[in-house]
Amino acid sequence: MRPDALIFDVFGTVVDWRSGVAEAVAAVLGDAVDPLAFADAWRARYDPSMAAVRSGTRDYVDLDDLHRENLDATLDAFRVALPDAARCTLNCAWERLPPWPDAQPGLAALRRQAIVAPCSNGSIALMTRLSRHAGLTWDCILGAGIARAYKPDLCVYRACAAALRLPPKRVMMVAAHNGDLVAAHAAGLATAFLPRATEHGPNQSTDLAPSEAWDIVASDLCDLADKVAAIGSPTA
Amino acid sequence: MRPDALIFDVFGTVVDWRSGVAEAVAAVLGDAVDPLAFADAWRARYDPSMAAVRSGTRDYVDLDDLHRENLDATLDAFRVALPDAARCTLNCAWERLPPWPDAQPGLAALRRQAIVAPCSNGSIALMTRLSRHAGLTWDCILGAGIARAYKPDLCVYRACAAALRLPPKRVMMVAAHNGDLVAAHAAGLATAFLPRATEHGPNQSTDLAPSEAWDIVASDLCDLADKVAAIGSPTA
Repeated sequence: MRPDALIFDVFGTVVDWRSGVAEAVAAVLGDAVDPLAFADAWRARYDPSMAAVRSGTRDYVDLDDLHRENLDATLDAFRVALPDAARCTLNCAWERLPPWPDAQPGLAALRRQAIVAPCSNGSIALMTRLSRHAGLTWDCILGAGIARAYKPDLCVYRACAAALRLPPKRVMMVAAHNGDLVAAHAAGLATAFLPRATEHGPNQSTDLAPSEAWDIVASDLCDLADKVAAIGSPTA
Repeated sequence: MRPDALIFDVFGTVVDWRSGVAEAVAAVLGDAVDPLAFADAWRARYDPSMAAVRSGTRDYVDLDDLHRENLDATLDAFRVALPDAARCTLNCAWERLPPWPDAQPGLAALRRQAIVAPCSNGSIALMTRLSRHAGLTWDCILGAGIARAYKPDLCVYRACAAALRLPPKRVMMVAAHNGDLVAAHAAGLATAFLPRATEHGPNQSTDLAPSEAWDIVASDLCDLADKVAAIGSPTA
């Protein structure tokens, strides 16, 4: 059955965070660091930095704040001094990431068929500014910002369905990361996988293929739109 | 200074709830009632129905649920019997309201200048479906659904600014209702008023003019877009 709503992982699935962050690093730090190495090191702190919120030992804070803490730590690790204003500018790199080439047409085609919304760990503010920059049009912004929790906590996926007043099974989670879909499936959502084989660079070894029999496997967001259209109209 | 974001009252300010609800009433109830009188009676229960949530004696529930309770009470008052399925259909009238003629072009022009989002008492689900129906494009959906509280509770306006990580003064509340702006101003937001002289029908006596010196007074949303453009670029 065609889903009534599709919700999307964004960093990696819809936008190319590695290229975008590396570009911002090069613009701010110049020759002081290898931009891609710095981007990878910054991103490597992303998942661990959410652990305290996931475990309940820290109140929810927006990812913007975690990004800044992780930036400060990465600058320390690279032994780079940087004034506060430049750190603020660099932290906004996450608001100016390039979409994958299929993102704009794919999302537009999907939006003609169903409600579309991000289900990212990025805040409402971050998703709003990133989407304006990248030319992505959503029906609403869901995810960590409305759940005040971080994926893969099941409550995030459930909060998205509840915000739309839909049963979880009528909502499809779209991600380039099998782990995200494992959690979404556990929360009762439908699932769609599409690979982003260069999200982590040319030597990527993870998430190159679906790890389970997800409801849809697509080559990109345009292919996903075609596959969703092919499964017929929703019950509504 | 030009605001970084504009947030909007929706029922009355962006869409014509009275005509839309009356049309749905006529379609479902036929000649059993006067459609406009029924719409007015249903809407008259709107504000009182939020009182328990505002006072804290009832947990937040989506406006969709209050609308349904108010519909049941209105049907009783009009002594009309109606099966549950038809009540569900009629309750969805609030998802299918017509925009005022200036809403689509005005919001599109404003979205080119700043972040735009509803700050309605409608839920995320209701605003999402209504906006898809009415062809309104937002950057995100704010309001009661993210604050889990009802305007004019000041926490709703503050939650919208906080969700965008903006100081309240950088956010402008747009409404056709002076009372909404009194609260938004008290919460520290900038304010814009535009009259909707027939929101309540031809004999409307309220909100025909600004009650205070709001930051902007416009004739409609297109005029507001012109006036916002004339005040220069934001600091960003």
